[in-house]
Amino acid sequence: MTLSIDFTNMMAGALPDGLGITETEWRGSRSAFAAAHAAVDAQRANLGFLTLPADEAALDATLAVVARTRGRFDDVLLLGIGGSALGPIALRTALRPLAWNTLDLAARDGHPRLHVLDNVDPATILTILSRLALDRTLVLVVSKSGGTVETMAQYLIVRDALARAVGEDAAREHLVFVTDPEVGALRRIARAEGIPTLDIPQNVGGRFSVLSPVGMLPAALMGIDVKALMAGAADMTARAASDDPAHNPAGAFAVLQWLADTRHGRHVQVLMPYADPLRDIALWFVQLWAESLGKTRKDGTFTGPTPLAALGATDQHSQVQLFMEGPRDKTVTFITVRGREAEGRIPSRHADIPELAYIGGHTLGALLDVERRATAGALAARGRFNANIELDAVDAWHVGALLQMFALATAYAGALYGINAFDQPGVEMGKNFAYAMLGKPGSEAARAAWDALPHPDARHRV
Amino acid sequence: MTLSIDFTNMMAGALPDGLGITETEWRGSRSAFAAAHAAVDAQRANLGFLTLPADEAALDATLAVVARTRGRFDDVLLLGIGGSALGPIALRTALRPLAWNTLDLAARDGHPRLHVLDNVDPATILTILSRLALDRTLVLVVSKSGGTVETMAQYLIVRDALARAVGEDAAREHLVFVTDPEVGALRRIARAEGIPTLDIPQNVGGRFSVLSPVGMLPAALMGIDVKALMAGAADMTARAASDDPAHNPAGAFAVLQWLADTRHGRHVQVLMPYADPLRDIALWFVQLWAESLGKTRKDGTFTGPTPLAALGATDQHSQVQLFMEGPRDKTVTFITVRGREAEGRIPSRHADIPELAYIGGHTLGALLDVERRATAGALAARGRFNANIELDAVDAWHVGALLQMFALATAYAGALYGINAFDQPGVEMGKNFAYAMLGKPGSEAARAAWDALPHPDARHRV
Repeated sequence: MTLSIDFTNMMAGALPDGLGITETEWRGSRSAFAAAHAAVDAQRANLGFLTLPADEAALDATLAVVARTRGRFDDVLLLGIGGSALGPIALRTALRPLAWNTLDLAARDGHPRLHVLDNVDPATILTILSRLALDRTLVLVVSKSGGTVETMAQYLIVRDALARAVGEDAAREHLVFVTDPEVGALRRIARAEGIPTLDIPQNVGGRFSVLSPVGMLPAALMGIDVKALMAGAADMTARAASDDPAHNPAGAFAVLQWLADTRHGRHVQVLMPYADPLRDIALWFVQLWAESLGKTRKDGTFTGPTPLAALGATDQHSQVQLFMEGPRDKTVTFITVRGREAEGRIPSRHADIPELAYIGGHTLGALLDVERRATAGALAARGRFNANIELDAVDAWHVGALLQMFALATAYAGALYGINAFDQPGVEMGKNFAYAMLGKPGSEAARAAWDALPHPDARHRV
Repeated sequence: MTLSIDFTNMMAGALPDGLGITETEWRGSRSAFAAAHAAVDAQRANLGFLTLPADEAALDATLAVVARTRGRFDDVLLLGIGGSALGPIALRTALRPLAWNTLDLAARDGHPRLHVLDNVDPATILTILSRLALDRTLVLVVSKSGGTVETMAQYLIVRDALARAVGEDAAREHLVFVTDPEVGALRRIARAEGIPTLDIPQNVGGRFSVLSPVGMLPAALMGIDVKALMAGAADMTARAASDDPAHNPAGAFAVLQWLADTRHGRHVQVLMPYADPLRDIALWFVQLWAESLGKTRKDGTFTGPTPLAALGATDQHSQVQLFMEGPRDKTVTFITVRGREAEGRIPSRHADIPELAYIGGHTLGALLDVERRATAGALAARGRFNANIELDAVDAWHVGALLQMFALATAYAGALYGINAFDQPGVEMGKNFAYAMLGKPGSEAARAAWDALPHPDARHRV
């Protein structure tokens, strides 16, 4: 059980034209990383994600909910957005069989389907509600603050539908809230009505919450081995004790991306798994990296590399042309799975047709590996930085390690960039404008600010 | 039936600090666009996508295949990658009910499910094959060149499985090839074995092929109104007769993004529909824009904005923090659907809880619209360029118009950047390295080039 990063193709020596991170830069980053490591360590009390893998009480509380609901529900409907949705979706894609929700009960080993409502498009919500048997549906309402407008709107609609389907009293037995232990609307409702809840620790932000009940409850309901997930994450946390990036994978990832951005102008940072089950982990990473590092400093300067999700080999036929020939402003980090050379033997046929004859006898696993290595080599030959995260398998242990590695790397990167990786002040203005338009009490100042925007009369339109 | 673009928030006047495209730049682009328009016009014979909406013979051939196979198949399995997959996926998401493949036959109006195999991950392919009833499955093999290695590998495996399931002779009746009219491996096999084929015109490249049988065959099999798609695309093509970007939506989109990139450093270009059904059109656009414009010029300079797919309101909780506060290097183009204010009434409940009381009585449609406008206003207030493509509805006509608009815009943008938007030379090196490693005859030069890469002995690894 190992996770390692090969970053040879980030470094001078593998790249032409004097490009690449130099040994001097890499070794010189040692003290910057040690300071970042110490800064993260000093904030431990505020960074609850560091201790989630060891939080047995939280996991026990989660598993108690799973045990209590076993066999009663065919469908789980998760209401949540952003960090409340991306983690559960990524875990379903990575650790459950393909197209989980299309499988029958036996193929799902008796576990429920999982539907994630992560938007407020009316067509989506009304369609899902019209299809679910609500008397056999468990609804998880997931919001750190307990007041997220999209999630509250979903909740009001779903709660109403539940009450009509099973009655007001029984509706409560179809609800679990996952929210702050003390504050917020969901907590108030839970207290008043006796609705079961699981806690998101106060020091765990939404995008760092996948190993809290936010991710672990839906995962465990679907039968994912959450203890193995935690063990993988704990292993990565232990490796992160080192303040030498050469011995701390999360540190190495953070330092390399930061050097590539700030010293080499590589500010678009692609995460490109070569394994279908890992595709949604790239989307989870996009939120983590973008929302944590995209910040305006007090002095008015802007930070924030732009993360980009891709998938190999598929995107070799979509985005790779740009990565190869477009501006030298990107890094590409692959994620690969070792030892798949025997999987998916390709039969021989059409021996008289050259485009097919050479393929027979290989395997799909080997083809995927060859394509990844060829792409990495061609990127390097063109001066494009790339690296490869290697896993022994796509299983709960390795996924836990991978998620915790990115969470740790994000915390380190925040310190390296000199910004707060744990807030998101940039979304407040838009949120307040929306509150003002919806008439939320207390949003008068936002209304005035909205009215003061230019709002040009002469619209440009074609 | 209208599609329009409001680009007020791209322009000086709506943005602070002297930011935004000036009237002088916009008016001054008129001659550059006229030249680009003329250049595209001069290439008409090579740009088959311009005439696809009027190609009744191609559509008739497609509909004949649909008529001949009606009722015989419950599942369609499409083998293809890149442009052969992204269009069909986008059409299914946009124009069929949510989660089409989970619906039963009646809910699908008798039409088949559609599975798109767009990668060579062995786990995915073997899992799909183990679940399909191959005697009721139609397999579409889609490749412009007719020799794409990923698609050929899929084909060899699926053909073998078909032959085992239904016998060698009957297997042919489960196959349709969509490929070049003359050349390539698929064409040779089709000729030799009498397998039905549909043509991708020689002057239509893969990423411009959605309105050819590549997209129209799977769409029509699923019951999508392909004639309305063509009519919408034809309408957009007619509007593109104007060489004034103020009267040509595709021209306006191309000019604005090009000015934003080359004059204002806005080289990350986000497409962010606020409508769930349009989410995969953003992924289709990413391929089109990235692969067409990401090029190295003969003088060694690099071009190519980086397209980014997002989804509103969901990504307000993921990427929008970066768009708001990160570097001022982005444009954001929303896609919205008019007139949804009555959809999804939110019931009132918990009147004593302020976070919920103000939401009841609104609708989800209004919430989505308010959130989009608030985000647009906040982005503009922070100097971030944004625009809004407005549709009257998500239906075949508007989707046809939207797809054709982006295809036209891409052709114009190629001319504005001074590059060939219709090739993809940057992927050849990686492809040839893969051929060399797989032992394809004729790849000896690639093998030598591969061996000549640095391949440092001392790997950097953590």
